[in-house]
Amino acid sequence: MKVVALAGGVGGAKLVDGLAKILPGESLTIIVNTADDFDHFGLRICPDLDTVCYTLAGSANPNTGWGREGETWQAMETVDQLGGPTWFRLGDRDLGTHLERTRLLKEGKVLSEICHKFSTKWEIAARVLPMSDDRVATVVHSSEGDLLFQDYFVKYHCEPQVSGFYFEGVDSATPAPGVLESLLAADLVVICPSNPWVSIDPILAVPGIPGAINDNVEGKCVIAVSPIIQGKTVKGPAAKMFLEMGISPSAANVAVHYGSISSGGLLSGFILDTLDEDQQNAIHKLGISSHVRNTLMKTPTDRINLAEQVIEFGKLLLRDHKSAVS
Amino acid sequence: MKVVALAGGVGGAKLVDGLAKILPGESLTIIVNTADDFDHFGLRICPDLDTVCYTLAGSANPNTGWGREGETWQAMETVDQLGGPTWFRLGDRDLGTHLERTRLLKEGKVLSEICHKFSTKWEIAARVLPMSDDRVATVVHSSEGDLLFQDYFVKYHCEPQVSGFYFEGVDSATPAPGVLESLLAADLVVICPSNPWVSIDPILAVPGIPGAINDNVEGKCVIAVSPIIQGKTVKGPAAKMFLEMGISPSAANVAVHYGSISSGGLLSGFILDTLDEDQQNAIHKLGISSHVRNTLMKTPTDRINLAEQVIEFGKLLLRDHKSAVS
Repeated sequence: MKVVALAGGVGGAKLVDGLAKILPGESLTIIVNTADDFDHFGLRICPDLDTVCYTLAGSANPNTGWGREGETWQAMETVDQLGGPTWFRLGDRDLGTHLERTRLLKEGKVLSEICHKFSTKWEIAARVLPMSDDRVATVVHSSEGDLLFQDYFVKYHCEPQVSGFYFEGVDSATPAPGVLESLLAADLVVICPSNPWVSIDPILAVPGIPGAINDNVEGKCVIAVSPIIQGKTVKGPAAKMFLEMGISPSAANVAVHYGSISSGGLLSGFILDTLDEDQQNAIHKLGISSHVRNTLMKTPTDRINLAEQVIEFGKLLLRDHKSAVS
Repeated sequence: MKVVALAGGVGGAKLVDGLAKILPGESLTIIVNTADDFDHFGLRICPDLDTVCYTLAGSANPNTGWGREGETWQAMETVDQLGGPTWFRLGDRDLGTHLERTRLLKEGKVLSEICHKFSTKWEIAARVLPMSDDRVATVVHSSEGDLLFQDYFVKYHCEPQVSGFYFEGVDSATPAPGVLESLLAADLVVICPSNPWVSIDPILAVPGIPGAINDNVEGKCVIAVSPIIQGKTVKGPAAKMFLEMGISPSAANVAVHYGSISSGGLLSGFILDTLDEDQQNAIHKLGISSHVRNTLMKTPTDRINLAEQVIEFGKLLLRDHKSAVS
């Protein structure tokens, strides 16, 4: 079974970690949002790629979900002493990643090559791909004006009210090598419990990606895991964004956001939390099969359990597809 | 008494530290070589400026003479794991300086402004100036071809044989704000025991600087402290460079290198080590007054003692000048 996961940062990294623990490396490709990437202090920072890679490498900070285990903050202390900006916390170990990535980019390497090199060094078995080697930048239309994502997210703590999103550069971006091929060959595409607006939508906005997901509908299924439980998110501003966009934050509305394959959207399946069981009917009405279970990933075992359920649900849907076709 | 010191890295920083401890801040200006500066991992590194500033701030590593006290190496460990270059050791605390400097340069600030800001934050009383805000790069003509200074110095451990030096960009470089003014107003110019070829010569190659040093010859004296003791240097490749340039490495030949003011050179005075006392006569013949003493700076007290002798010698020479004129 060939599985492709679309992922943003912390929530996505957790599910992907579960998938990586139960699937052989060659069966799992992870396409990561890079529209959060930005330049800071002259270095290229790729928050979601690094969170996914650190998590898969087992070197993520288990307390924060982002950054690295055993991290120190000496460089930032110097920056602070010098009166520089410290709103984006760059740990010393983490800085090494940005230094070497920046050096390789300046040498003319592209992000997907660098990502492949780093994954190999970190002994990550799954294939991790940036959505694109081209620069795409999420701009948040907000009550404070247009904000670059990291400014909105980290500097302003997601406080400004959101009225829309724009992915600068996405129209001319091409999928990174391997992205379309892996989606075309996938049996199961998993949309991780990441922020639909700013983690998954940028990936889906890269020309060619939705088409590759929707190709070979009969032999493939697309399952999303809800990042919203009881109207709230575990982490991040997804629920707040739904509200400010005039949509009630709910698992069902995440399903509406992605749409059903039968109505020109993406989903054949949707996994929602046990606490949101009452929304199964609404999701069914969209023409999307649903599966209810505990989706909160507090422990490494939770990640594996959820990943197993995603795979089982995928197998079930694929079997249904095939029996429907035959 | 207004004192201006020309300095490179470790040796220069030690004498400058002694001078800073005995002179009021407003009496001391330090003009630092920036031809060793280079870009690494996308960051601007200024080794001599940082060595001078860390030393004056009391935060230099007392064991190495370069880098910072209490340094850690987490970023470099990451770079190493990723297969990146580690020949230039960037400590975590040190990295903060490069990050913030790079950020400010990208914001459009010039090096002298940044240096002023950092000096203020580090509570350095003396005025530290880069020789120029323009990029100048020392190129070493060597048996391995033309090498950028840091490649020669750090990457190749000074092993290639040297046949000459070239300061790329220096012809169009202008002295940083304050450099010419401080030299014109100086009573005493001190050429620190830094490498004549690659630490002091780049400063002297900036158009306008030699002229400003030689201006008002009667009211000023220029004293060099020999970086060579018994044909050797405490640190660095100066002696090796003299040899490879076909010149015997000796205190007297350092004096020849800078030349006497009476023969179109720079020096009115020269301080050499007690162990080289026999060379006083040769220096006298050049028309340069000399002073013999222990020049090795092993302890903080050695720095202060040498600085005091430099100042005393300077006062003596100035008195002689004045009595000769009157």
